[in-house]
Amino acid sequence: MFRHTSLLQFEAKPEKPDALYARKLQELIGGAYGEMTVTMQYLFQGWNCRVEGKYKDLIMDTATEEIGHVEMLATMVARLLEGAPATTMAEAVKDPATAAILGGMDPQQAIISGGGATPSDSQGYPWNGRYVIASGNLLADFRANVAAEAQGRLQTARLYNMTDDPGVKAMLQFNLARDTVHQRQWLAAIEELKADGLESDIAPTALFDEENQEHNNTIWHLSDGPDGNKGGWTTGPEGIEYLMDPQALGGPGVAPPPDPALFATAEPSLGEPGGATSVTSEAGKTKK
Amino acid sequence: MFRHTSLLQFEAKPEKPDALYARKLQELIGGAYGEMTVTMQYLFQGWNCRVEGKYKDLIMDTATEEIGHVEMLATMVARLLEGAPATTMAEAVKDPATAAILGGMDPQQAIISGGGATPSDSQGYPWNGRYVIASGNLLADFRANVAAEAQGRLQTARLYNMTDDPGVKAMLQFNLARDTVHQRQWLAAIEELKADGLESDIAPTALFDEENQEHNNTIWHLSDGPDGNKGGWTTGPEGIEYLMDPQALGGPGVAPPPDPALFATAEPSLGEPGGATSVTSEAGKTKK
Amino acid sequence: MFRHTSLLQFEAKPEKPDALYARKLQELIGGAYGEMTVTMQYLFQGWNCRVEGKYKDLIMDTATEEIGHVEMLATMVARLLEGAPATTMAEAVKDPATAAILGGMDPQQAIISGGGATPSDSQGYPWNGRYVIASGNLLADFRANVAAEAQGRLQTARLYNMTDDPGVKAMLQFNLARDTVHQRQWLAAIEELKADGLESDIAPTALFDEENQEHNNTIWHLSDGPDGNKGGWTTGPEGIEYLMDPQALGGPGVAPPPDPALFATAEPSLGEPGGATSVTSEAGKTKK
Amino acid sequence: MFRHTSLLQFEAKPEKPDALYARKLQELIGGAYGEMTVTMQYLFQGWNCRVEGKYKDLIMDTATEEIGHVEMLATMVARLLEGAPATTMAEAVKDPATAAILGGMDPQQAIISGGGATPSDSQGYPWNGRYVIASGNLLADFRANVAAEAQGRLQTARLYNMTDDPGVKAMLQFNLARDTVHQRQWLAAIEELKADGLESDIAPTALFDEENQEHNNTIWHLSDGPDGNKGGWTTGPEGIEYLMDPQALGGPGVAPPPDPALFATAEPSLGEPGGATSVTSEAGKTKK
Amino acid sequence: MFRHTSLLQFEAKPEKPDALYARKLQELIGGAYGEMTVTMQYLFQGWNCRVEGKYKDLIMDTATEEIGHVEMLATMVARLLEGAPATTMAEAVKDPATAAILGGMDPQQAIISGGGATPSDSQGYPWNGRYVIASGNLLADFRANVAAEAQGRLQTARLYNMTDDPGVKAMLQFNLARDTVHQRQWLAAIEELKADGLESDIAPTALFDEENQEHNNTIWHLSDGPDGNKGGWTTGPEGIEYLMDPQALGGPGVAPPPDPALFATAEPSLGEPGGATSVTSEAGKTKK
Amino acid sequence: MFRHTSLLQFEAKPEKPDALYARKLQELIGGAYGEMTVTMQYLFQGWNCRVEGKYKDLIMDTATEEIGHVEMLATMVARLLEGAPATTMAEAVKDPATAAILGGMDPQQAIISGGGATPSDSQGYPWNGRYVIASGNLLADFRANVAAEAQGRLQTARLYNMTDDPGVKAMLQFNLARDTVHQRQWLAAIEELKADGLESDIAPTALFDEENQEHNNTIWHLSDGPDGNKGGWTTGPEGIEYLMDPQALGGPGVAPPPDPALFATAEPSLGEPGGATSVTSEAGKTKK
Repeated sequence: MFRHTSLLQFEAKPEKPDALYARKLQELIGGAYGEMTVTMQYLFQGWNCRVEGKYKDLIMDTATEEIGHVEMLATMVARLLEGAPATTMAEAVKDPATAAILGGMDPQQAIISGGGATPSDSQGYPWNGRYVIASGNLLADFRANVAAEAQGRLQTARLYNMTDDPGVKAMLQFNLARDTVHQRQWLAAIEELKADGLESDIAPTALFDEENQEHNNTIWHLSDGPDGNKGGWTTGPEGIEYLMDPQALGGPGVAPPPDPALFATAEPSLGEPGGATSVTSEAGKTKK
Repeated sequence: MFRHTSLLQFEAKPEKPDALYARKLQELIGGAYGEMTVTMQYLFQGWNCRVEGKYKDLIMDTATEEIGHVEMLATMVARLLEGAPATTMAEAVKDPATAAILGGMDPQQAIISGGGATPSDSQGYPWNGRYVIASGNLLADFRANVAAEAQGRLQTARLYNMTDDPGVKAMLQFNLARDTVHQRQWLAAIEELKADGLESDIAPTALFDEENQEHNNTIWHLSDGPDGNKGGWTTGPEGIEYLMDPQALGGPGVAPPPDPALFATAEPSLGEPGGATSVTSEAGKTKK
Repeated sequence: MFRHTSLLQFEAKPEKPDALYARKLQELIGGAYGEMTVTMQYLFQGWNCRVEGKYKDLIMDTATEEIGHVEMLATMVARLLEGAPATTMAEAVKDPATAAILGGMDPQQAIISGGGATPSDSQGYPWNGRYVIASGNLLADFRANVAAEAQGRLQTARLYNMTDDPGVKAMLQFNLARDTVHQRQWLAAIEELKADGLESDIAPTALFDEENQEHNNTIWHLSDGPDGNKGGWTTGPEGIEYLMDPQALGGPGVAPPPDPALFATAEPSLGEPGGATSVTSEAGKTKK
Repeated sequence: MFRHTSLLQFEAKPEKPDALYARKLQELIGGAYGEMTVTMQYLFQGWNCRVEGKYKDLIMDTATEEIGHVEMLATMVARLLEGAPATTMAEAVKDPATAAILGGMDPQQAIISGGGATPSDSQGYPWNGRYVIASGNLLADFRANVAAEAQGRLQTARLYNMTDDPGVKAMLQFNLARDTVHQRQWLAAIEELKADGLESDIAPTALFDEENQEHNNTIWHLSDGPDGNKGGWTTGPEGIEYLMDPQALGGPGVAPPPDPALFATAEPSLGEPGGATSVTSEAGKTKK
Repeated sequence: MFRHTSLLQFEAKPEKPDALYARKLQELIGGAYGEMTVTMQYLFQGWNCRVEGKYKDLIMDTATEEIGHVEMLATMVARLLEGAPATTMAEAVKDPATAAILGGMDPQQAIISGGGATPSDSQGYPWNGRYVIASGNLLADFRANVAAEAQGRLQTARLYNMTDDPGVKAMLQFNLARDTVHQRQWLAAIEELKADGLESDIAPTALFDEENQEHNNTIWHLSDGPDGNKGGWTTGPEGIEYLMDPQALGGPGVAPPPDPALFATAEPSLGEPGGATSVTSEAGKTKK
Repeated sequence: MFRHTSLLQFEAKPEKPDALYARKLQELIGGAYGEMTVTMQYLFQGWNCRVEGKYKDLIMDTATEEIGHVEMLATMVARLLEGAPATTMAEAVKDPATAAILGGMDPQQAIISGGGATPSDSQGYPWNGRYVIASGNLLADFRANVAAEAQGRLQTARLYNMTDDPGVKAMLQFNLARDTVHQRQWLAAIEELKADGLESDIAPTALFDEENQEHNNTIWHLSDGPDGNKGGWTTGPEGIEYLMDPQALGGPGVAPPPDPALFATAEPSLGEPGGATSVTSEAGKTKK
């Protein structure tokens, strides 16, 4: 069960409105690597966690924080939209700065939300549940968490360079800091999983004997770029073999004979139209 | 530019058909962490890579391999569907095994594909481009790649336990092996990025001075699970501080006054219906 | 900012697992009228609310409760999936009950979540942000809230009739109760908006003079069902006129001449192929 | 079965083109609360209606009208796009007004439709069937209809303030009028359902005894906004109790032990990597 | 503007219910090539048609018919669901036939629609507007129409083989007939476009001189299947040249140097971490 | 299995950057008729092809080429974005040309991709697998291929008119040529299917006797446009009859009685609220 305080985790006050930027910030709300994703990803990971204790508690602490990040961003967007030229007609535009805003602002922030954020990304595509991963395997999930925080910090850093507003920058400096520590935290939790003997370097920690032993240590050189084998990944005791002239191991990819009742085109048994299906006298009688 | 051989990278021959399993395998084709995702993710990463040489070449070698994995799985699905009871009526079903297949098979593999795979996941949801990340930042992207291969190997391992078919198992043993080595390869490539001085542990390797220094080393204890601070992440020189009683730092999340022309409900200036908007005599005259 | 307790708002303990039902419950988590929708809808309404005080506080109280409903349902799903026959092969099925479960269970709850809930509906379609409405107009939004709680209670009631499990039924009895009171609460809040003079019966409370006065009190009889005009909506002082033989008021729906540079087919200016576009000698020269 | 006249229900003639506005109007065509939604929602409600007579006939009359609204809007969009600067290059732009149009217009209205409307919203997101509700429960559905018409009229009102074109305004004045009467009509139909004894105030009119009687009359104060209990919803004979210090009623949200064959991380039974899964000697043998 | 009669275009009465088949029929309602697609495709084509007269009238006649096909199918689905075992528990199932139905039926047809059709396909994926094409170029669009009717008839034929019910079969025999004549009609309309000199064999009938003349008559042999050049497409006066050993014509696909403010990984200018971005001292200062 | 060369199939070098155009080009990458669609469509058709030899080999040759088209376009987009004003603030804009670019460019090409292409269309909507058709019936699929290449060439032609850049135009001239020959190739392959006696003019070549013979040769005049019967489709030996006053053939579209356990509103059996459901004393007891 959750509780809420109306105070924001960190201040979200722009110095002045900026409707163009309000659209770009949507990426951090409803984008694939925005705050709705980490909110829901951590919540479902916590609820699906099969190890009670430190791991689950860390997940739920972080999940609960992330709901508040969506809140900060939604508040910031509403404030950036104050006085936005939502009802200005294009022909009334007198200067290029307003033209850029009028052309670039998110029409749905006006038409649908009346000057507020939407649960969508910067192109108006709605956030969706397929962005979330909560597999129950903590190694696989913590790796996804590191990746999400890395993309999140990268996008935040890019957006940091797209504004001069001190209020926006102050909030993003907080967000950058949180994304840094969250990356570190999930990296540390991966080490902890290994130290605890719960998982190894490879997810899942299972089926290592069953997997094909001939093919678990080679990189196949299938593109003609000449330098793939020059990386450190091929050297040392953990080095991976670079297979320079790999050959296909399987036979041809032939699909089996079709079910005549489904009318796929097939080799004719007779030399007339519909030959493929003419064998199925009941299911699919053909035209004479 | 690409070339194709009709030989499969590895054999994809089931011992016998299994229409229920053919549906489950769709997850590895068109799921969020299926082979279409890694194919497109690596292709776009390669095309968007700003470092010519070993990194880009490794990406393109792997991308090119992954197209062939989609091919193997699609071929396998078609063969698993051979003789599937697509046109059997429910009332004709005499045994529970067939009932399970009839109830659980993917109707679109019959109705749309005529006995073949679709670019969808095991619930029939189509693969889509939002699964792909190619940011140009190799640290952030390689982390996403490790995560994708980890989830991919996890799902493959689960599917490995859902079949007894030796032919299917043989192919999955190959896939497990490739997912193992691909995890190792991206992990090694991350180390290489650091060794080459291109990136650090945190993505992006930038804005460390700008980020809020007070808040980049704390975990906020916002859920009441008592063990979050008992993990190794809080100890040692790299330990993160666990903030046990964190307080909101911002003011209340108040949205600014609305644009009257957009008709959000607001404090009335007059005591009559539509007071909020009645100030906008031109934009939104209210009913008397 | 939010806080979380690991205790559930209400108990979520099934007497025994039921993997088929675990799939159906997904509708209440990630369906268009599931708990993720009301969670996000109320959160965005609260953050976008332009009237501080009782309305916003009511919205945020309810929003915060709804996150906990997602939690209860996700927990219930994980418990219903305990011991689910995820890895059972169809041919091993000996009885119809297991066949029904094996055919009907959600394959992604096993392959993706490892025995947990996903942010999707009962057909595996992911929850998405377009389900949410937060317009800033409280009358319009509270109506959407009444509608959402009505559909939510209806779906809960249907699911109540699809199980015999006392533990599941107990939780759903709680959910039914909450959906009842939430319907009443939003209906009461609509009356309050009117009593406070903020809104009227019609959303938005504006542009009543501007709207076309001839056409705001008629129902057009365009289908031949004979009884549409027999409802109470046509009688009394508020009765709406039933227009029994309505005629189109506009002219023909003719599209304007196309831009030749966009190659829409148009009346030929010459009697030769591509006549429509052959006038644009620069933009689109045609083959001779 | 349907019939069509080429005359529009109401005139749809702009005084002059406006490509920027043509994009915004897409919201009324293919948005979540656009005309495609009410068209399909009412059609499916009518086809799924279990009460022959006045209700169904009213639904079908309205549904049939709405198809014609999509037609009016699509025609308007095509006319607003006449002479749109689809092929103008940015560098050729000399004035801010054109810059705003060029930046803000919908590229797909040119590239895909050749100067016509698309079945998408103002951000280019396609209309989809999840916007539609047709539950068979008329109370729940009529509430959704009131909500849809309210949001529809609100969005139309906002768009009314975004144009000066007399032709566009005339059409929107018609649309506003229709949205007003449709709100009234569904509100009246809800009263009729009650008068006819078919439904009550709460949907569905069932399971009132079964629902948890302790929890169907309380609002939980879970956010710290102080005014939630000051609304009229807490007073009078129908007043709802405001639970000021609500406590969680359930136990902790613990997920059950995982299926070892699905490789979720779990408490180790042995102190070695992969302990969680090492018990499943057959399903998931771990690496030594 | 449209009108509706409550009589169906053709009878839609199954002899008896079949809930499993009711799910499959959803493909013809809301699938990519279902009746909602042709309805909306033809409507938007008609509204966007730039040639008044026979073409537009043919399109609108057909569009109007297709709405009625959605109606027939939705009615059929509701009737097939009569008495569906929606509330039966799996453990109560005694025979394989019921098990197959219980496992395979669409849960949303019960939970959401209360025993009716939804605007979704047979996997529960909602119909969406991206299925529709209405380009304004009649040749391109009529080709899409032929393709849609071909896939539509194919899927109908497959579904015809999946039922024994005489009532269902009678309706599908009508649908098959309509799909046949609609294929013929669009093929004839393509011939008419050519006879009228409006379009040629290739869409659009433009830019033939501008297109690259070296590369508009060759098929590139990029897969090693040996028989591609043995088809009739390579022979006769219209034969296309089969390029047996095609070579890439372009240079390497190198991405340009990145914008430092966006933090893509790039060649280091210095040998320290973050070298790539360390040049941008203002935009992205790096950690020491 | 596939192989890759780092050389592009054709050069993709713009003379100078153009960020606005880079957004428009996304339509050819990830749009419904973009290169990702033909890539995946032909790949799945090839893998699902049931006729080994010339048809399958032609499909795979073309499929393999199309992957390279995605590559060319992605490379072109990255180059068009070089030096894009991604971090310029609107208020810094001094001229209308930059304003148009700033307003119109794709924010995700900066925020997500760091200056590269995304697998999305020109409105930022992600490519998805429902765009693909691979039915196994070659006639139906080749028709879809002709249609896809026609729309693809049309969109390319439109984009050709939206740029002056010689480098972009050179690449599009290549693409136009390929789209021309691919249209011809699939048209020729359709003739070959007929010459080989595999398929006829109508897909599928089956069930001609079964289809309703009364209704497979009529066009129903359901819209009042007067010229539909004036086309060549009504004349000659293959002429289709134009049914000028068609009448509905079916009965009324009445839905069957509802399942009381699902709470659809129905005729009351008693004169009290919830009458419809009051018969189900166990399943849905009503409030007194």
